[in-house]
Amino acid sequence: MEWLEEQAVLKDLGPPDRPVVFTTDFGLADPYAGVMKGVVLGINPRATIVDLTHQIQPQNVRQAAFALGNSYRFFPAEAIHVVVVDPGVGTSRRAVLLVTPRGRFLAPDNGVLSHVLRDCLDHPPERAGRVGVPSGLAAYSLTNSQYWLHPVSHTFHGRDIFAPVAAHLSLGVPPEDLGDRVQDLAWLPAPAPVYEGHRVQGEVIDVDYVGSLRT
Amino acid sequence: MEWLEEQAVLKDLGPPDRPVVFTTDFGLADPYAGVMKGVVLGINPRATIVDLTHQIQPQNVRQAAFALGNSYRFFPAEAIHVVVVDPGVGTSRRAVLLVTPRGRFLAPDNGVLSHVLRDCLDHPPERAGRVGVPSGLAAYSLTNSQYWLHPVSHTFHGRDIFAPVAAHLSLGVPPEDLGDRVQDLAWLPAPAPVYEGHRVQGEVIDVDYVGSLRT
Amino acid sequence: MEWLEEQAVLKDLGPPDRPVVFTTDFGLADPYAGVMKGVVLGINPRATIVDLTHQIQPQNVRQAAFALGNSYRFFPAEAIHVVVVDPGVGTSRRAVLLVTPRGRFLAPDNGVLSHVLRDCLDHPPERAGRVGVPSGLAAYSLTNSQYWLHPVSHTFHGRDIFAPVAAHLSLGVPPEDLGDRVQDLAWLPAPAPVYEGHRVQGEVIDVDYVGSLRT
Repeated sequence: MEWLEEQAVLKDLGPPDRPVVFTTDFGLADPYAGVMKGVVLGINPRATIVDLTHQIQPQNVRQAAFALGNSYRFFPAEAIHVVVVDPGVGTSRRAVLLVTPRGRFLAPDNGVLSHVLRDCLDHPPERAGRVGVPSGLAAYSLTNSQYWLHPVSHTFHGRDIFAPVAAHLSLGVPPEDLGDRVQDLAWLPAPAPVYEGHRVQGEVIDVDYVGSLRT
Repeated sequence: MEWLEEQAVLKDLGPPDRPVVFTTDFGLADPYAGVMKGVVLGINPRATIVDLTHQIQPQNVRQAAFALGNSYRFFPAEAIHVVVVDPGVGTSRRAVLLVTPRGRFLAPDNGVLSHVLRDCLDHPPERAGRVGVPSGLAAYSLTNSQYWLHPVSHTFHGRDIFAPVAAHLSLGVPPEDLGDRVQDLAWLPAPAPVYEGHRVQGEVIDVDYVGSLRT
Repeated sequence: MEWLEEQAVLKDLGPPDRPVVFTTDFGLADPYAGVMKGVVLGINPRATIVDLTHQIQPQNVRQAAFALGNSYRFFPAEAIHVVVVDPGVGTSRRAVLLVTPRGRFLAPDNGVLSHVLRDCLDHPPERAGRVGVPSGLAAYSLTNSQYWLHPVSHTFHGRDIFAPVAAHLSLGVPPEDLGDRVQDLAWLPAPAPVYEGHRVQGEVIDVDYVGSLRT
């Protein structure tokens, strides 16, 4: 009897090595970030949840791509990154899952995963557009609404789609259950520096907390 | 021998499904929010702790009630919500526990639970005052100082009363051990819109991160 | 077979009572705080991570010392505090571990642990400088690079030294494996009030969220 109870406890533990990592532009004053965590814990009570940041500038996809691209390698390879920064929320923009050997990424298909993709591309395109999913990686369109929260709101896909899908992934649901395989993803090139004589021009992506600029 | 050690480990695991969820006006610059978490972990080392927000406007009970009321349904039903927003801290205002089928709520008895109560009331009062605890729910006054941190400060009940009581609840202490049953709670009605010809007047409760107003 | 798997799961659980507690001046907008947590979880997937605050004023060692000194007693005695506030980052300033009966502290050797030390000193020095490690405590210089992340950056010791060392401590690595014992630590005295007739002059260390001053 004790043995059975114990088995039940162990079964509830869930995998230890799949933290859910949030990157959003929701800020911390509103309860949105907290609500997403509530949804995750409702599905996987043992989930480990980490904030990369919730203070991406509103709808600044490039800044989010940059923050994620410089950070994901420092998380466990089994981490599930949830990126919710999207000027197109409420439109028909699809939500995607990108599976890599160094993390899984749930995000709108708006280019926010470009820095992650770049690390796996031999020849990253110079212009914005779409790029084929590099070999060794796999991408899926999140179309299986069985793993969503219902009713799905028009404006809070972080709560109703991304958070529950992340929780199911952390429980071991295989990516192919979440939707159809896709062959390309939105692409934003890194802003290229422009050399003009002795001056270098670039795009300021970010100003960090000590006031230094990133270009 | 190994078996015994193992039992000890399992015993320490604690229940998996009772996250402690904080809503306060403490901000994140000061260590107050962190200190409350330290108190929780000192009592239940396995507690799962989530922030709904610590950035309620100072002492804005209505804003906290609104944030909580729109969020609690997205957390597990066994969640323990700790709400510390109180212009009356340091006075004799009582601290209460409200037990509902959709979460337990620790808060000062100042109306901050009104949105949670409203969801269970057939006829919510139109004026501020007190309201009977709806059937199916139960409320308790936190009077059993055995579960508090001592000495109890006059100004930091979040640390000395709410956090330790939340931790004990997460370990399975039954509500009736925490204090006496109470029959009514403070009540703040939702600000009613006032229709004046073609204009609608209401009270602005909150300005969210994209600048939209909530009324 | 099931037994073996179970043992493996239990082995992965790690000790339940050693939360890693962060105090930094990194802010929450940049991904630095999140990245440190990723590093911790990569080494100890079961680590409990808490923020005391990431909003110490940039490089304000006195404010960090004060925040930590007023908070650490409310955390479990086995907590591992990580303090990363250092105007001297990138210099040869050494990183230290201070072991006390009320917590372990990883920090630059710049005086940020003075309030913790003061609680164990019979005669705290009145002037800034260095102070002998009080009896009953032990301090170590973090010199064993085996527990660091490589390559070690010049500017992000939080990620490359403090976070991985904290994670290894949480897994049970003994302090003496991390580096050599040291006999003294940097010391900042508490700003002494100066009495001038009926006026009291002191140094304002901090302005908290309700606008009250700390001296």
